Amino acid sequence: MTIQPVQAFEPPYVISVFTSVRTAEDGGYPETLERMTELVSGNPGFLGYESARTPGGLGITVAYFRDHESLALWRKDMEHQAAMKQGRADWYESYTLHIATVERSHGFVREDG
Amino acid sequence: MTIQPVQAFEPPYVISVFTSVRTAEDGGYPETLERMTELVSGNPGFLGYESARTPGGLGITVAYFRDHESLALWRKDMEHQAAMKQGRADWYESYTLHIATVERSHGFVREDG
Repeated sequence: MTIQPVQAFEPPYVISVFTSVRTAEDGGYPETLERMTELVSGNPGFLGYESARTPGGLGITVAYFRDHESLALWRKDMEHQAAMKQGRADWYESYTLHIATVERSHGFVREDG
Repeated sequence: MTIQPVQAFEPPYVISVFTSVRTAEDGGYPETLERMTELVSGNPGFLGYESARTPGGLGITVAYFRDHESLALWRKDMEHQAAMKQGRADWYESYTLHIATVERSHGFVREDG
């Protein structure tokens, strides 16, 4: 499977940009990540997400939502709230979350690729 | 030096989210990246940037600006425009750029860290 960036959606849409540094604690993390991905995919306004992490360094996860109402539903989800709490207790040294409305976007795909 | 996510600035501010997959072509890339970092740092509305790349996979770069005017200045910079052109010719298989206004943000730093 070829890796591709998530496409440029039709603005306006909402992005959540989560930048983080992990602890060494990994207990429960992969399972929770999988469960959260499953859970957010059931949100009707969820458009997709993508993630990158420099080994031993910064991780950036961007999630895309159709509107702020969809994101609010996700934020209030009880299982998600429990996961965020455990994230602060166990998995993250530090993080920053930026919630923003996208006003324009475009994509590029190499023709000869 | 401890790695730390860029802080949560006082909203509103502007983010540019650039997600990309690189080609194998590296010629000129590190030098151009260094020059672009130097150049954007001279922009009075530039707040910072951060980047993560999963080895062999997706890269995400987030740049933070005080306002859309500052970002527009950066977009119109001639050296930056030449670099973007070379990026499409040589360095990127595909990318997506999302320009957004941040409405809220917050950070977390572990107390016992």
